[in-house]
Order: sequence, then C-alpha cells, then structure tokens
Amino acid sequence: MKLYTYWRSTAAYRVRIALHLKGLRCEQEPVHLVKDGGEQHKGEYRAINPQGLVPTLVDGGHVITQSLAILEYLEEKHPEPALLPSKPVERARVRSLAQIIACEVHPLNNLRVLQYLSNELDVSDRQKTRWYHHWLEQGLKPLERRLANEGRTGRFCHGDSPTLADVCLVPQLYNARRFDFPLDAYPTLRRIDEACRELNAFRASAPEAQPDAVGTAGSN
Amino acid sequence: MKLYTYWRSTAAYRVRIALHLKGLRCEQEPVHLVKDGGEQHKGEYRAINPQGLVPTLVDGGHVITQSLAILEYLEEKHPEPALLPSKPVERARVRSLAQIIACEVHPLNNLRVLQYLSNELDVSDRQKTRWYHHWLEQGLKPLERRLANEGRTGRFCHGDSPTLADVCLVPQLYNARRFDFPLDAYPTLRRIDEACRELNAFRASAPEAQPDAVGTAGSN
Repeated sequence: MKLYTYWRSTAAYRVRIALHLKGLRCEQEPVHLVKDGGEQHKGEYRAINPQGLVPTLVDGGHVITQSLAILEYLEEKHPEPALLPSKPVERARVRSLAQIIACEVHPLNNLRVLQYLSNELDVSDRQKTRWYHHWLEQGLKPLERRLANEGRTGRFCHGDSPTLADVCLVPQLYNARRFDFPLDAYPTLRRIDEACRELNAFRASAPEAQPDAVGTAGSN
Repeated sequence: MKLYTYWRSTAAYRVRIALHLKGLRCEQEPVHLVKDGGEQHKGEYRAINPQGLVPTLVDGGHVITQSLAILEYLEEKHPEPALLPSKPVERARVRSLAQIIACEVHPLNNLRVLQYLSNELDVSDRQKTRWYHHWLEQGLKPLERRLANEGRTGRFCHGDSPTLADVCLVPQLYNARRFDFPLDAYPTLRRIDEACRELNAFRASAPEAQPDAVGTAGSN
C-alpha cells in the first residue's frame, strides 16, 4: 500500500493512526500542500486524486480517496484490531462522533478554506482566528457534552479500546492546540486525547514524527 | 422509527431517500430551521441532538445523529435493497463519492455557514453566492470527472442500482439549482440525477413532497 500524505494534514493523520493501530505496512509519499502553490494541485497528483486533496491510499492498483472512506476500507480489509464495535447501534455512535469532526469541524477549517477567506474575502487574521475557533467550538462543545454524558464512553471515546472516533479526535485536538484554541472547557476530550497519545500507534502517526515534517515551530 | 427532519435540509433529504429505497416506515417530526431563530437551537431539540442539526433518527430508544452515520446504520440494520456494493474496494468507491459531497461541499454551504458569513463577516449577497458556487464547483468538478471516467459508473453513480452516492448527489443538485448554479458542465451528474428522480423513492423524498414544505418559491 502507498499513502499520499502531508505531515500536517489532519485527514492524513487519521489514516496514519489507523494503519499503525492495525499494524499495516504502508509506504508514505509526501505531497507538500504549501510549497510552490501546493503539489496537490499539480497535474501528476490530480490524475490520482481529482479533488487535489490528501490523503489518497493506493492498494493493489485501487485508488481510494476521502479519509473516512479509507478508514472504512481498512476496517473491512483488515478487521483486527477492530476500530468499530460490532453492534449497528454502537457502530452508529462511533461514526456519529467521528463525523462531528470530519463533517462539521474540519471541512470549515482546512487550508483551502482559510486561503479563500484571506484571498477572496479579505478577512483579517483576527477574523480568521475567530472563524477557526468558532467552528471548533461548534463541534467540540456537543462532542464534550456527549462524551461526558453517554454511558458508552470509556477510557476512549467508545469503550476501552480506540475506535474511529479517537482516530478523528486526536488530529483535531492537535490542530486546536496549533491554532491556540483553549481546551480548558473540554476535560473529557483532553482525558481521551491523553489516553490515546500514550499508545505507540498515535505517537508514531503524529505530525512531528513524519519524515516530511519541518522542524521550525509555525512553519508549513 | 422517528426522523427529525426539515424539508429543505439536504442532509435530512438523504436519509428520507434511503428510508424510501429500503421501504421503511418512519414517522417524520419537522424541525423548522429558520422560524423564530430556528427550532434546532431550542433546549428540547438540543437534548436529543446536542449539535442542534438535523437530521436525527430515533430507533427503539437509540438516538442517531449525523446523516452518513444514519445511512450506514440503516444499511446494516436493513441490508436489502443494498445501498453499498459488497466488495470493500467498491464500497470504498461509493463512500468516497458520497463524501465528496457530504464532507467537502455541503459543510461549507449549509445554513449556519451562510448565516456566519452575513452576520459575522459582513459578506455581501454577491460574495455569498460566489462562495456557494465556488465550493460547489470544487466538489462537483472532480465528481463529474470521476463519474465520467471511471468504469464502475453505470445508470447510477455505481452500477445500475442506486447507492449512498446517489443518495447524496440528488439533494446536492437540488441545492445547486436552488442557488442558481449552472449545471451545463456536468452532463454525467445531470444524467444520473434524472435517472434517480424517475424512481418513486427519490420523488417521495423531495423537499416539495414533504408535509412541512412551504409552497412559496424562495421562502424558507
């Protein structure tokens, strides 16, 4: 397998975590999202991924795009260890938690949207940070409320082993810290995030641990 | 089962289509997203869905939020007729097509985002329309390219029976037309959309066919 990735892409980060949790070997092919206007927009990459987004997984000649689709694919092809519970209603809970992040927070705060706000709408840096924090809060508040109140929450988002919900949560909190979003009001999210980051699979998938990571804080 | 829905919510529209395709009975509980500042923000609804978004499905006391999670749940509980193919790589293709819409287009163009652009960023109506069209184009262009070029496309997005990709496509094209987005450059999407809308399940799920629909064109 080959994963087209970028160290700071949280969508790619999700897939890296799942690969590590499942102990799967996968070649990494970095796609630099910022340098020279972004390698993801070049014809060579667009031929593989017409959306010009990372990640893309290539497995035996099959090209799979969209991080949630890749995660479900890995789960179906390599069921152990399971990242989804077995009962439909519990699977729905995990997917719903994951999608609060993947469908409601991340799409509004990713690079191309921040670039549009600056370049097309002339939004100031201060307003851009407010935008970023606003959508994070809109997603993380109900997520905290659910995880704090729902009985199925355990050491991780669902029970005592990591699921696709944790796979989405940890990269999103990485981004929250990167954009100076205060996490004091989110004790359950922080507790779960810490439990995850004690695991090798999460540590090995972190942006800073990637071969294409750039050392300087704040750099792209 | 009970579905909390709003006639013009495209996320609820997806779930209505799946329910109809599978021939499942489901009570509909309308949540008016605009009237009095939005019923979805009231405490009564937030107790069910802390995000304050539609749809929510309640099945035997279980509350399920996030439309893609609901669709997967319905697929697992009521596998026939199948809205996902059987092979992992084909399931991944369908999910990836669905997610181009559900994770990349819709989150940027839904009501709460358009309200933020107006209320917080003072964006003009013209700029708001450009925003709307821009993100539609960013999603629909690669979707058209993939559907036109990939061999697994058939009468529908994947083969000759509807899948979750069609369930997401038709509501998104409804919204595109509603916001005057020209669809001339998308012949494959239009062809599939028409094939879908010949089916009763899609017709019965359309916004205008809902009990809470408001008759006046352009009204909310």
